[in-house]
Amino acid sequence: METGQIRLNKVTGEWVIYAPSRRRRPQDFQHNIEDNSRLDQSQNYCPFCSNHGQESEKILLEIKNNQQDHWQTKVIANKFPALKFHENAQRNIEGIYMTMSGYGHHEVVIESPDHQQTIATLSTSEIEVIIETYRQRYLKLMEDKEIMMVIIFRNHGKGAGASLRHPQSQIIASSIVPSHRRIQEAEAQRYFDHWARCVYCDILDFEIKEKSRIILDNHLFVSFVPFAAEFPCEIWIMPKQHQADFGSITSQEKRAFATILKDSLSRLYNKLNNPDYNYVINTAARYKAEEPQLHWYCQIRPRLTTPAGFELGSGMSINPSIPEVDAAFLRE
Amino acid sequence: METGQIRLNKVTGEWVIYAPSRRRRPQDFQHNIEDNSRLDQSQNYCPFCSNHGQESEKILLEIKNNQQDHWQTKVIANKFPALKFHENAQRNIEGIYMTMSGYGHHEVVIESPDHQQTIATLSTSEIEVIIETYRQRYLKLMEDKEIMMVIIFRNHGKGAGASLRHPQSQIIASSIVPSHRRIQEAEAQRYFDHWARCVYCDILDFEIKEKSRIILDNHLFVSFVPFAAEFPCEIWIMPKQHQADFGSITSQEKRAFATILKDSLSRLYNKLNNPDYNYVINTAARYKAEEPQLHWYCQIRPRLTTPAGFELGSGMSINPSIPEVDAAFLRE
Repeated sequence: METGQIRLNKVTGEWVIYAPSRRRRPQDFQHNIEDNSRLDQSQNYCPFCSNHGQESEKILLEIKNNQQDHWQTKVIANKFPALKFHENAQRNIEGIYMTMSGYGHHEVVIESPDHQQTIATLSTSEIEVIIETYRQRYLKLMEDKEIMMVIIFRNHGKGAGASLRHPQSQIIASSIVPSHRRIQEAEAQRYFDHWARCVYCDILDFEIKEKSRIILDNHLFVSFVPFAAEFPCEIWIMPKQHQADFGSITSQEKRAFATILKDSLSRLYNKLNNPDYNYVINTAARYKAEEPQLHWYCQIRPRLTTPAGFELGSGMSINPSIPEVDAAFLRE
Repeated sequence: METGQIRLNKVTGEWVIYAPSRRRRPQDFQHNIEDNSRLDQSQNYCPFCSNHGQESEKILLEIKNNQQDHWQTKVIANKFPALKFHENAQRNIEGIYMTMSGYGHHEVVIESPDHQQTIATLSTSEIEVIIETYRQRYLKLMEDKEIMMVIIFRNHGKGAGASLRHPQSQIIASSIVPSHRRIQEAEAQRYFDHWARCVYCDILDFEIKEKSRIILDNHLFVSFVPFAAEFPCEIWIMPKQHQADFGSITSQEKRAFATILKDSLSRLYNKLNNPDYNYVINTAARYKAEEPQLHWYCQIRPRLTTPAGFELGSGMSINPSIPEVDAAFLRE
């Protein structure tokens, strides 16, 4: 298997990606006791700083700073892609199993030329440029008709799966919609069929009225700890405007999203001593963006607890924290 | 909220448990740089050793060793239960949300009086006693008609969510069947409706014929790396006899399961330097055990990679290892 492969789990209906460029030998996983829990802050070589290694990288997008004297964000192909666009997207039968080749795109958004920054420490204007970068790449990737969904995400810190300290996000565009997402779509569809309303809009309305889980409400976005948060201090940022598609974010909304994203991540940074976290922008898959029941949102999950055997077997989380308490803590 | 509560996530259809006894304040989660990746091997106080703390614990089951001169396994109530049996199982509406009280059982299986052992280092006979302990508690917990499913699991090492080194498993009995499990049931049902066969039996037949992912095949069980393994060196142990219900394991099967469980965990222990792992026994929920499409199995997941933002957003895993390569590595 030299090319990438995606395999369907017959038991859960979920797909798993096997990427040749990310491949390691099993013995490479031997438990390392000296494992450091933080990314090295003073690493000598950073491929995203200055021009290291970038001469050979094709730059997919570059946005300059206001003074136009240097780049502010830059998008390059991931050197170790999970999915690759030069593979074809066909499905294959392997005995009783289904596989497909690893078609897709995997890009890195370098968020700043400054190695030491992170979103919590960048200015709102700089974050607005990151969001504009997401938007442009999202629209570009959706032009590829083989692509069914685009996932924009950020891994911060080693415990959240990051391997480099330089501020960066990633974008993966895939030709399949995973079962995980289909389940959310089906839940929203069922709710809409019962009530003729978007469940996300109803959650927003209820949370704004209820107040106890709200962190910040600016005129266009709300940040809150979800009622059934799976992890301590989980935060959702949701646009007030009903809109399934992140790509249709307006200029005004971009500014408001940058403000509330900085606010949310600064609260985590200051109150929880710069915890590891992931965030993801959950936006509609192709063909779903025009349906009335979906709503894009950004989900921020600090990595403060370790899912264990119970979660593996049940899919249920045990959250040692209470959403209302977390919200009060993050608000104060 | 003094009592436990379980909340329904309206977006995913999944439940989240909020257990008062496990509660921590948000500030307790502040990132600790000095965090040690291994459990302290020489901790002075262990609540499961000798008689520490156990005077006050009600012993739910105790099985003696062959010579009958000391206990071999012991089951006690979890001191920090995720679910509690003295709460009622009723559901409540909270605005647009659904909650229920945290009814259930949460037990600890102390697997050996010897603090330093783990399953990989115990004898097959000792492991057989652990399995018999699981079986007896499983049957006992299923006598409670409020209980819909019993989850038997083991967390080994800090990176797998363990907080104590003493060899132990846990059992959680819940009054709900999580959506995660319902999805697996639906997949198996659909397969059965198409082919009139158990998908798990078909997987077993195919894997035995194919050989490349098999680790060990004893006369009653097979251990193998699943075709779409989500993590490196993931192992499934499956009984050859079609059986949905772990509780109907025979004496002969108990012995064979002990043998293959020890074999699997010893391979991980020796070849990957005692990695952190979780295992769970996936057995049918109440009312499903008599249906022809389900099949119990034990899933072992070493914690060798860190799921990140992509997994959060897509539910798909990126596995840097290939199941056939892992199987060859574990087999040799």
